[in-house]
Amino acid sequence: MTLNEYICKMLNTDGSLPFRTVTVEYAKKSVITSIGQVERNIYFLQQGIIEIGMEAETGNKIIDFSFSGDLVSSYTSFLSQEASDVYLYCLTDCIVEVVPYAQLHEAYQTSLLSNQFGRLATEALYMKRVRKEKDALTKNAEQRYLELIKYRPEMIKEIPVHRIARYLGIHPESLSRLRKSIS
Amino acid sequence: MTLNEYICKMLNTDGSLPFRTVTVEYAKKSVITSIGQVERNIYFLQQGIIEIGMEAETGNKIIDFSFSGDLVSSYTSFLSQEASDVYLYCLTDCIVEVVPYAQLHEAYQTSLLSNQFGRLATEALYMKRVRKEKDALTKNAEQRYLELIKYRPEMIKEIPVHRIARYLGIHPESLSRLRKSIS
Repeated sequence: MTLNEYICKMLNTDGSLPFRTVTVEYAKKSVITSIGQVERNIYFLQQGIIEIGMEAETGNKIIDFSFSGDLVSSYTSFLSQEASDVYLYCLTDCIVEVVPYAQLHEAYQTSLLSNQFGRLATEALYMKRVRKEKDALTKNAEQRYLELIKYRPEMIKEIPVHRIARYLGIHPESLSRLRKSIS
Repeated sequence: MTLNEYICKMLNTDGSLPFRTVTVEYAKKSVITSIGQVERNIYFLQQGIIEIGMEAETGNKIIDFSFSGDLVSSYTSFLSQEASDVYLYCLTDCIVEVVPYAQLHEAYQTSLLSNQFGRLATEALYMKRVRKEKDALTKNAEQRYLELIKYRPEMIKEIPVHRIARYLGIHPESLSRLRKSIS
């Protein structure tokens, strides 16, 4: 699916974005955006898996994984055009459609479709962020793991166990015990 | 300032919103939105101070204060149209301009200005949320209090000390000691 198809589906329309996107291939283990860099793009992930994470005192902390059909960006950095405090890393070979900041912001001046897209994408990111924050406050690792199984089975299937553990903020051994106790 | 004036200033345009808003007065201590209720509106605060908070095991937790010229809503509830987990409470007499969900969503179908407004408002809320989350992880109460003095002096001036303490997540006595040590 292309970004334009994705947007038309999301908005139930048949319009066309007023700018061109570029499709880029990244090899597995590529860093798309590094910590300290200013995020210049939003990426529509056509194929592959991208990990988003940050540095913490206890080593890297994984914030999220994105799959085919997801929009990905260091969005705070993209909006503010200040240095990113997260990285985007390719867990597999990836194909992404790149939406550059300058083109999107030019389109925002006059294009209804671009603003509808920007609004809905930001609303979705906002909701995701709030839900995650709430889960971190109210649910333990077991509950959060059970929700992954239920709502994001592709994550359980495709991501190595030690990375899921880092995402949940627990030791890999604790996650192994959890998996045994569940099965 | 009206919401339309605010939007035109924000977007550097002289357009007009394609829907009417209603101006409502709330007396001090009114609850605009309560926990468990579905948020039906976005409010543009023309006059007064609104407190946003949630229930926690240790009593009410204050999330934010809004002042004249701010947009206020239980925004997660507004977007999802599910029950709110925060309340909106008038610390003073308030005058608000009400933007109802149904009218805004109808306008989103066709109005560039409405989408620009919705996008920018959501971007601002997203950034605010991320910054707060980051501050909570990286700064102690003293640093956060010093930032309030610097960036939000109106809060220090207008909000009772015990409420600022609850916002910072510390005991009022600790805040008093902090204030003494700073002055």
